[in-house]
Amino acid sequence: MKLIRFGEVGSEKPGVQLSNGNKIDVSNFGEDYTEQFFQNDGIERLEAWLEINQSKCDIISDDVRLGSPICRPSKIVCIGLNYAKHAAEAGMKIPNEPVLFFKSTTAVVGPNDDVIIPKGSTKTDWEVELAVVVGKKTSYISKEKVASHIAGYVLHNDVSERAFQIEKEGQWCKGKGCDTFAPLGPFLATKDEIKDPNNLHLWLKLNGKMMQDSSTSDFIFNIEESISYISQFMTLLPGDVISTGTPFGVGLGLTPPLYLKPGDVMELGIEGLGVSKQNVVAYSGK
Amino acid sequence: MKLIRFGEVGSEKPGVQLSNGNKIDVSNFGEDYTEQFFQNDGIERLEAWLEINQSKCDIISDDVRLGSPICRPSKIVCIGLNYAKHAAEAGMKIPNEPVLFFKSTTAVVGPNDDVIIPKGSTKTDWEVELAVVVGKKTSYISKEKVASHIAGYVLHNDVSERAFQIEKEGQWCKGKGCDTFAPLGPFLATKDEIKDPNNLHLWLKLNGKMMQDSSTSDFIFNIEESISYISQFMTLLPGDVISTGTPFGVGLGLTPPLYLKPGDVMELGIEGLGVSKQNVVAYSGK
Repeated sequence: MKLIRFGEVGSEKPGVQLSNGNKIDVSNFGEDYTEQFFQNDGIERLEAWLEINQSKCDIISDDVRLGSPICRPSKIVCIGLNYAKHAAEAGMKIPNEPVLFFKSTTAVVGPNDDVIIPKGSTKTDWEVELAVVVGKKTSYISKEKVASHIAGYVLHNDVSERAFQIEKEGQWCKGKGCDTFAPLGPFLATKDEIKDPNNLHLWLKLNGKMMQDSSTSDFIFNIEESISYISQFMTLLPGDVISTGTPFGVGLGLTPPLYLKPGDVMELGIEGLGVSKQNVVAYSGK
Repeated sequence: MKLIRFGEVGSEKPGVQLSNGNKIDVSNFGEDYTEQFFQNDGIERLEAWLEINQSKCDIISDDVRLGSPICRPSKIVCIGLNYAKHAAEAGMKIPNEPVLFFKSTTAVVGPNDDVIIPKGSTKTDWEVELAVVVGKKTSYISKEKVASHIAGYVLHNDVSERAFQIEKEGQWCKGKGCDTFAPLGPFLATKDEIKDPNNLHLWLKLNGKMMQDSSTSDFIFNIEESISYISQFMTLLPGDVISTGTPFGVGLGLTPPLYLKPGDVMELGIEGLGVSKQNVVAYSGK
């Protein structure tokens, strides 16, 4: 099943994208895609509900805005430097254990919303990533049990401001959680849809030119290892997002480096998880 | 006004601690202390409601558990190394701009709940801190406007696992967000109760011995500077927690270093913000 959320910013409704590509409104199921939804077997209950009610659901027009396919999570935990060639281009060594950081959840936007270059930014960069959505509350989980705690997978652009992230003092969080820096979607694919998440083609184009083109088979730490590791340091809640790192081909790694400017267009995709597209705009005050 | 939350873990109710020390149940006001409460002038509305209804509110027994005085925030943003003597004891240089990191919000517990030493931990440490609770959604805020966006202040023990934080690869978040690592409370003091948050005595005792004893007047970056700075990198939401750093006297800085062990008792306080007390226990599986 492919879960979507649609409508204006802040008043998104839950929907489902059918296998024929049609999108339907499932508001009448009565639940949004929240922590409670995932914890209480929402995916299974929604599937059962659809068997009876699908034909009564309204079809959503293709020009309706998509939001993030999940409600604001309690946290977005990211793995840094999880592809060897990307660690090299970032000038950092291959880690012996997963490098973790948080993105502010206020960064979450819909898959095709604008990405805003923050005030004072000179080095805003792209990062296509496979993100995992947690299905069940867990901590200290073994690698073997990770799969049963996953709700599904979603395409994520881990937009990053490199001067804020690396050149400013302290931790990476300054350059990772700016508003609009976490486009999620177009949909959450429930885990049954993705045969092997550790072997998915993923790519990102800037203004039509392929910049990142790789596979999650190049992970240093695969999904089971990463999530088991994270759970040693914090409890994961249903709906939490784990983003698994980006492959080679970000702007920071080019010679000379190339960063986003207003008018640029990013298109990205992962096998089985659809495509998103963000226009880059300047911060315009308020 | 002093906001409290009381009751069993996960089913806390809102209350108020009166100036005579009595605690009353304000469940009948109909709102918990959430993002929406703060955003929609909840403090002012609750004050007005109490003028009419206070005498009808039940008094809470002193043996009832206190929870965190606010619901789970969207984020806990912490300032690192914000007292010069603490930066020195941590072996780090005095920063030229605030060092920021996130604590996982799953770390939040009540002010007198047990602190659990995580599995595999050898270096769990204490940090008394003044935390600010955001009152209004904001970004790119000037120092001059910070005060009008604050809901109030709360005592925070920024419990930290130094091996996870510093010796493991990558960012500090591994050692900052373990479960129970963010005791908050006993109460949120609304901002009118605290004349000068940049000049408050704060202290922490371990097993009755004074370990930290300082004043927020020793901040490198005061509250207005810190919050204005953070808001350059992310939107702050009502109910978000900003923790302002710890003074000299943590276990890491002692010769030899001293870390928490099961049976230890931490007591901490800040002028005007009450006292909290946590027993340290071993992780016991589940």
